[in-house]
Amino acid sequence: MAGETTITIVGNLTDDPDMRFLPSGAAICKITVASTPRVFDKESGEYRDGEPLFLRCTAWRQIAENIAESLKRGDRVVVTGRLKLDRWEDKTTGEKRSMMSLDLDEIGPSLRFATAKVQKMSRTRGGDGFTPADAPDDGWSSASSECPAA
Amino acid sequence: MAGETTITIVGNLTDDPDMRFLPSGAAICKITVASTPRVFDKESGEYRDGEPLFLRCTAWRQIAENIAESLKRGDRVVVTGRLKLDRWEDKTTGEKRSMMSLDLDEIGPSLRFATAKVQKMSRTRGGDGFTPADAPDDGWSSASSECPAA
Amino acid sequence: MAGETTITIVGNLTDDPDMRFLPSGAAICKITVASTPRVFDKESGEYRDGEPLFLRCTAWRQIAENIAESLKRGDRVVVTGRLKLDRWEDKTTGEKRSMMSLDLDEIGPSLRFATAKVQKMSRTRGGDGFTPADAPDDGWSSASSECPAA
Amino acid sequence: MAGETTITIVGNLTDDPDMRFLPSGAAICKITVASTPRVFDKESGEYRDGEPLFLRCTAWRQIAENIAESLKRGDRVVVTGRLKLDRWEDKTTGEKRSMMSLDLDEIGPSLRFATAKVQKMSRTRGGDGFTPADAPDDGWSSASSECPAA
Repeated sequence: MAGETTITIVGNLTDDPDMRFLPSGAAICKITVASTPRVFDKESGEYRDGEPLFLRCTAWRQIAENIAESLKRGDRVVVTGRLKLDRWEDKTTGEKRSMMSLDLDEIGPSLRFATAKVQKMSRTRGGDGFTPADAPDDGWSSASSECPAA
Repeated sequence: MAGETTITIVGNLTDDPDMRFLPSGAAICKITVASTPRVFDKESGEYRDGEPLFLRCTAWRQIAENIAESLKRGDRVVVTGRLKLDRWEDKTTGEKRSMMSLDLDEIGPSLRFATAKVQKMSRTRGGDGFTPADAPDDGWSSASSECPAA
Repeated sequence: MAGETTITIVGNLTDDPDMRFLPSGAAICKITVASTPRVFDKESGEYRDGEPLFLRCTAWRQIAENIAESLKRGDRVVVTGRLKLDRWEDKTTGEKRSMMSLDLDEIGPSLRFATAKVQKMSRTRGGDGFTPADAPDDGWSSASSECPAA
Repeated sequence: MAGETTITIVGNLTDDPDMRFLPSGAAICKITVASTPRVFDKESGEYRDGEPLFLRCTAWRQIAENIAESLKRGDRVVVTGRLKLDRWEDKTTGEKRSMMSLDLDEIGPSLRFATAKVQKMSRTRGGDGFTPADAPDDGWSSASSECPAA
């Protein structure tokens, strides 16, 4: 697939993950993420919560199972995926309806206000490999000691 | 700050987090993320690893401490932040050097190939709040039962 | 504002820009962008159009006027902005409704299948300045001549 | 390709596009985009220019030719593409060097401070098609008249 609209959203689960299994046995997990921007209030000179954005997200297979096992209502997450338009017909009125949702690609519990104990699954596929020795050595390590922030 | 260049990167830590404390007592944590795209090989009809992208990321304060406590070399993470250009002068040659790095805003261990046990910190600030009852109810739950995927 | 959900979408205008003026005299311009992903069809070995994503976008003030003057139905554009949730009540049924839309920050006609003749406006503000001499000189120009692609 | 790191950058061209032709006849165009964030200065209560970010971008084929024909030094653009790591060896010192750059997917002249006269190329391929009648009709048009902003 090319030309999809990707998005990253950071927010809190509005509910526990909704986990189901398809007749094929494949797992499907749905969550809703509420992302609340912080608005600067010029009068008070402080930040306050803005209007939250709610986005429904759907995950499949292994990542769906891992979500159901790891996350619960209220957890803050970082999510990336592809926006899509769900369309359906209202059963009662026959009216055509649509809603934006997310086909979830990656998700992780945010470490901003939490720690996490990670448990890797035994993997058989090869992907995502790299050799740390491949990492570019362009003097950053030594240079960083000169950075004011370090 | 407005008009910054934001980015999301998914990849694996090339090393354990490098955690330090500034003279002020503030924590600073540096990690390098290696992101390896999957390339479709037309001849073999299979995906193989492409050239990895390496990005240095810097986190401060509480999130820096949470990273150091939660992550280790090899862990797959989802990271968002703002790109910036580090500049320095090579001590030996006097040559001007620069490198892109990331001011990290959010990070979480990816649940694609792992589960995570999340431990929230006791928080005092109010932000990121939402009332689940605010979530839009537009028939998605009932409609979803009609979706072929569900 | 911090913590907003930003997004970039590439697609075609479904209609001519809808330009209005508020009582205050400020311009407001609405457009809908249809983004059509390309799906690889394994059977035919070719790409075909996938399901389009439609996103309503709203622009204000000067950029709104420039959109109305520059773009028309069918034009392909690159748009960035912040997602937000519009909520309203259906006048007939009293039902609560909501829809995702975009607060547009930047837009440009895509140069993928078109050329554009750019006409800068006379500007008084200072921003977005840079001195080309500030650009990092790290041997890229000379190195590029070694690149296989160059 | 899957799992690439995509990015959107908004900024100004530091120079006129550098257009060349490969021995194969294919066009290749290089530009550098300088993106300058706006920083809020608490003391003065005003925004000022922050440190610019410079990103080299490479375009190929038709879009490369359209860039060369449409854009010039100083023009503000919206660019999306995929980050990659260029590696080379310094001819003089033999030192290994690397730099982040962008494989450009889409670009458009920003309409924030400019208008543009768009000239579509005659196209033969089918893609990016949509039927405006497909656009969801969920009462937005009528609802928009109730919006405070409209």
